[in-house]
Amino acid sequence: MSDGGADRDISLLFDVFVLHQRVRSLLARALSGTELRADEYAVYSVLFERGPLTPTQLAASLAMPVTTTLDYLRVMTRRGHVQRARNPADGRSYTVSLTADGLTAHQRTNAEWNVAVRQLEDALSMPVSQVRAALQALDDAAGAALARFADSEPTAVTSGR
Amino acid sequence: MSDGGADRDISLLFDVFVLHQRVRSLLARALSGTELRADEYAVYSVLFERGPLTPTQLAASLAMPVTTTLDYLRVMTRRGHVQRARNPADGRSYTVSLTADGLTAHQRTNAEWNVAVRQLEDALSMPVSQVRAALQALDDAAGAALARFADSEPTAVTSGR
Repeated sequence: MSDGGADRDISLLFDVFVLHQRVRSLLARALSGTELRADEYAVYSVLFERGPLTPTQLAASLAMPVTTTLDYLRVMTRRGHVQRARNPADGRSYTVSLTADGLTAHQRTNAEWNVAVRQLEDALSMPVSQVRAALQALDDAAGAALARFADSEPTAVTSGR
Repeated sequence: MSDGGADRDISLLFDVFVLHQRVRSLLARALSGTELRADEYAVYSVLFERGPLTPTQLAASLAMPVTTTLDYLRVMTRRGHVQRARNPADGRSYTVSLTADGLTAHQRTNAEWNVAVRQLEDALSMPVSQVRAALQALDDAAGAALARFADSEPTAVTSGR
């Protein structure tokens, strides 16, 4: 069985699926000795770089459903890695940020994550900026397609904002 | 909170994470009325386009660990969607392919999947071929980086192939 072009005909979305699987395997290997999994590291990184954020802002940064984001926050709270504060912009909501322990966990995983990033970038046959432009174009297009679905479908859950 | 460039600085691997999340949301929406989930559809599609395959070949096509692939095959077997046959190339192993019911399930999901693909492609600000070239370059690089990890690490499980 060839691993080349003929194996890649199915579709653009299939390419995304395969890429995600491969990157997941790479990160599972790269982070095997660290305390955070790759998906957790992504969540911690957003809080590290952009926190404090409301859960809704965090979910938007991750392109993740709010419910899933709250699941992550629950686990992180249990670990003592995240803390809540009243949202200065809106007293009815709250923001979350990493605690000192959360920052330490992020930092400990960071070195191994960066090894994976460097190895990946070293092996790339085209400029990183070009690849990222394509990923971002695709992400924008997926966002636009998603918005069209949201517009065209009657939503069952509209109550309670 | 901006959704633009400033939100996307973390890294190439973070881009892949976000893209995968967004595509997953899109497909969850697009396939909400179908019998297969997006990840299942990917597995069925490989068997539809390239089957019969050994579980190892299927796993390689999906960039998925063999153990995970066997989990999918177990569920598909329970549904009566997949059948085994002796591998003509190696009598000690077997191949899997879709049954008539498996083909029907694939076909029923296919129309909705294609709607998502078309909407995505219509919304793309660069040629599909250019995006796919970038995804494939990244996938190749991830494969190369993974191979380097595999080479450099002493493996605990080497017995029994």
